[in-house]
Amino acid sequence: MTAVEQSGRSNLPEAFLAEVRRIVGQLNLKEGDAVGNLDYGVTADNLGALAVALPSSTEEVADLVKCANRHRVSVVPHGGRTGLVGGGVSSPEEIVISTARLNRTLEIFPTERVAIVAAGVTLQTLQEAARQHGLEPGIDLASRGSATIGGMVSTNAGGVAAFRYGVMRHRVLGIEAVMPDGSTYSDLTRVIKNAAGYDLKHLFIGAEGTLGIVTRAVIKLEPVPLATATAMFALPGLGAVLDATDLGIRIQRGNLRAAEAMWRSFFQLTSVEQGWTASDYDNSSPLHLLMSLAGANEPDLLEAFEGIYETLAVKYPDVSAVVATSQSQEEELWRLREDTDLIYRKHPAAPSYDVSVPLSEIEGYVTRIASGLEKIDANLAPYIFGHIADGNLHIVLNAAAADCARETVEAVESVLYRGLHRLGGSFSAEHGVGRKRIGALSDLTDPVKLSLMKVIKAELDSLRILNPNKVIQ
Amino acid sequence: MTAVEQSGRSNLPEAFLAEVRRIVGQLNLKEGDAVGNLDYGVTADNLGALAVALPSSTEEVADLVKCANRHRVSVVPHGGRTGLVGGGVSSPEEIVISTARLNRTLEIFPTERVAIVAAGVTLQTLQEAARQHGLEPGIDLASRGSATIGGMVSTNAGGVAAFRYGVMRHRVLGIEAVMPDGSTYSDLTRVIKNAAGYDLKHLFIGAEGTLGIVTRAVIKLEPVPLATATAMFALPGLGAVLDATDLGIRIQRGNLRAAEAMWRSFFQLTSVEQGWTASDYDNSSPLHLLMSLAGANEPDLLEAFEGIYETLAVKYPDVSAVVATSQSQEEELWRLREDTDLIYRKHPAAPSYDVSVPLSEIEGYVTRIASGLEKIDANLAPYIFGHIADGNLHIVLNAAAADCARETVEAVESVLYRGLHRLGGSFSAEHGVGRKRIGALSDLTDPVKLSLMKVIKAELDSLRILNPNKVIQ
Repeated sequence: MTAVEQSGRSNLPEAFLAEVRRIVGQLNLKEGDAVGNLDYGVTADNLGALAVALPSSTEEVADLVKCANRHRVSVVPHGGRTGLVGGGVSSPEEIVISTARLNRTLEIFPTERVAIVAAGVTLQTLQEAARQHGLEPGIDLASRGSATIGGMVSTNAGGVAAFRYGVMRHRVLGIEAVMPDGSTYSDLTRVIKNAAGYDLKHLFIGAEGTLGIVTRAVIKLEPVPLATATAMFALPGLGAVLDATDLGIRIQRGNLRAAEAMWRSFFQLTSVEQGWTASDYDNSSPLHLLMSLAGANEPDLLEAFEGIYETLAVKYPDVSAVVATSQSQEEELWRLREDTDLIYRKHPAAPSYDVSVPLSEIEGYVTRIASGLEKIDANLAPYIFGHIADGNLHIVLNAAAADCARETVEAVESVLYRGLHRLGGSFSAEHGVGRKRIGALSDLTDPVKLSLMKVIKAELDSLRILNPNKVIQ
Repeated sequence: MTAVEQSGRSNLPEAFLAEVRRIVGQLNLKEGDAVGNLDYGVTADNLGALAVALPSSTEEVADLVKCANRHRVSVVPHGGRTGLVGGGVSSPEEIVISTARLNRTLEIFPTERVAIVAAGVTLQTLQEAARQHGLEPGIDLASRGSATIGGMVSTNAGGVAAFRYGVMRHRVLGIEAVMPDGSTYSDLTRVIKNAAGYDLKHLFIGAEGTLGIVTRAVIKLEPVPLATATAMFALPGLGAVLDATDLGIRIQRGNLRAAEAMWRSFFQLTSVEQGWTASDYDNSSPLHLLMSLAGANEPDLLEAFEGIYETLAVKYPDVSAVVATSQSQEEELWRLREDTDLIYRKHPAAPSYDVSVPLSEIEGYVTRIASGLEKIDANLAPYIFGHIADGNLHIVLNAAAADCARETVEAVESVLYRGLHRLGGSFSAEHGVGRKRIGALSDLTDPVKLSLMKVIKAELDSLRILNPNKVIQ
């Protein structure tokens, strides 16, 4: 369903829309059919507002938000629309502010290894610009071509390198954001050491546009490695996967760059579909670990992989492994991990989850949820894969959404989220809260923290202008 | 001057003190002479309250704060009392809550490489516990033996490894803190990926006890390197220092562990006093760079140092260098950087500053402040040294505090801080705001940010119970 089929026009007052046109220019307020021509991203509901303003400067964003305040119109900020939890969903009573045209600033400072980036710049564009100076943003994710820096800041994006370089929150040195009242918070700090008062940029990072619209950010960069190498290990159990990850983290002639685990059912799905095999590699192992190393030269890294393999083989004699010897082999290995669409083709819109579990608790957690799901429905089982060095597991059910009754979904959530907070984990590792996880946030958050969240939202946005009914009610 | 000499007794109502005694036990409320026996740390004014409560649990801290609310008594939280900006200064109308006895929790989770640590545990104690598992906290500073984890969280401590591992804010995964109303914020998350709502722990980190008393924290750990090596380079100018630092950051067979720069006047002070020389090393060079590398083995690191030296020598033929070949030589080199007390012996209580400057702006900044200081007083010159990879400069005047008129100090601040915010730097890199930098904060902070800081302080602590008149008025 596209936005246009939902309804022709927004329900916004014409006086408001006229002011919006004056601020951004006639062509940059998309209405009616013009909205239907936009890419709605992950869900057509993103464009439910049927009115999308495309400001080209921080000032225009501020003017739009002030205007929205005057007219009591709620604003839904949009980046690349790649969010998975409905943070960008909008209704005909709201207006979308897209950051797509906030893409003029992209300044690399190679000496200090930072970039000042406008919110609408995509991760890939930043990566390409940084690479010209031998630098990279220290964060990477599959949707790099669409995900914008503003969206990544607003959702505190994660990705494959968090165990080493942190999540987006740790990459951001400075921020400019338009507040719910239309004032502009301007702190484009370019240094990592700043102990000058409360660090309030963290209110905007990960707030999914409910406390401010991020317009620019200063991002810390890291040197691009001279060489990388990739290998995959077939392992008998999670203990072996964690041992391998730990060996990777402790290599000293280089660094661990990625450690992605795949449990058997997921690996069999992608490897069978892709017809992937390798000599002496046991496709039927319970777990598969894809590791990338980075360092000075390939021989160092291959030696490190050999060392890891030999150490593992002593403890786990049935380990098998494959090392990529060409870029196409490396891509093949990554495709086994990244082709998650296969699940959804088999089980349309299968319910999916994204949890963080402290590493020493994963074994028990996975056993517990498998048996919990089985109790709900004997046929229910999880596909599990994820960023193992962070304990970030993606869990997708082997069932189409249409086949899952509401009670089933609720029971599944209860199984997957139970005890996570007590363990020091998270019911949302990197996908955020949006609209879909509001109930979980309310049920599973420390009550003092939850009440403080509400106080801050009410204090900063008493008129509920910015992305209402997302993250918290 | 000790606290006892200031005055015998606090001005607190006996009814309040009686309740405090009931909460912590008679022996753990120090009053009168017993306060005089405590180590007041950096300044005797820290113990101006003349009443110090030493709770041994989060519950006792919470009860104390609730009690303080009932009696409208302000609380000054104390860690190791190593703060340099008066964040711990207290008056007879206040009570100090010391975290010294909050030292029961120190749990290392080697698999996930995190530690749960009570606020009163010192950095050194955490370092020693982590080292038993081949891990380290990724943050280090000279006052490690006194500085507590709670204090380091509350001041967002920096140190020598921030360019690589971030500042304290980046090391903290979870927090438990007692809020100004005595409720307990409990979020002992043990994972780095957590996108479950606003990350409000950042309100407590770096707030210097004005928004909460940190009682426990979850700290991310990093592997201890197998080998380290240290060298010092005598360099003709800042460009060469930055080139050397960049080469260090980009080495791939290991990692840069520290990069400490010393400008000539500082280096000459310590090297002359310590009688330090090395063959073929030019003590009179304008700049000196102490670098540590970490990696798999010493030969790799020495090779890296050679590579750095050779690359530098092409561009800067007058570079000279010395490599430490024993631990005692390494310690000698570090003593040249760390013996900052020499300045204060020569110039008692010399005014000192702690700024962050984006690396490409340092050259201009240093030139500008040298000439600005000279204009104030022809004899005035700065000693400059610091964590160069972060742009964190410590600047101490060559004048005793007693010789500096109030107008001089104000003029100096104006010279040192002018334009820093616009450049993306900070007037307080790692020392915080406390009482000493309140004026600077108020003058130099983005007005929207400053007003948001005030809103949050007023909202969370309307009775001004927690550390009033620190950070913001």
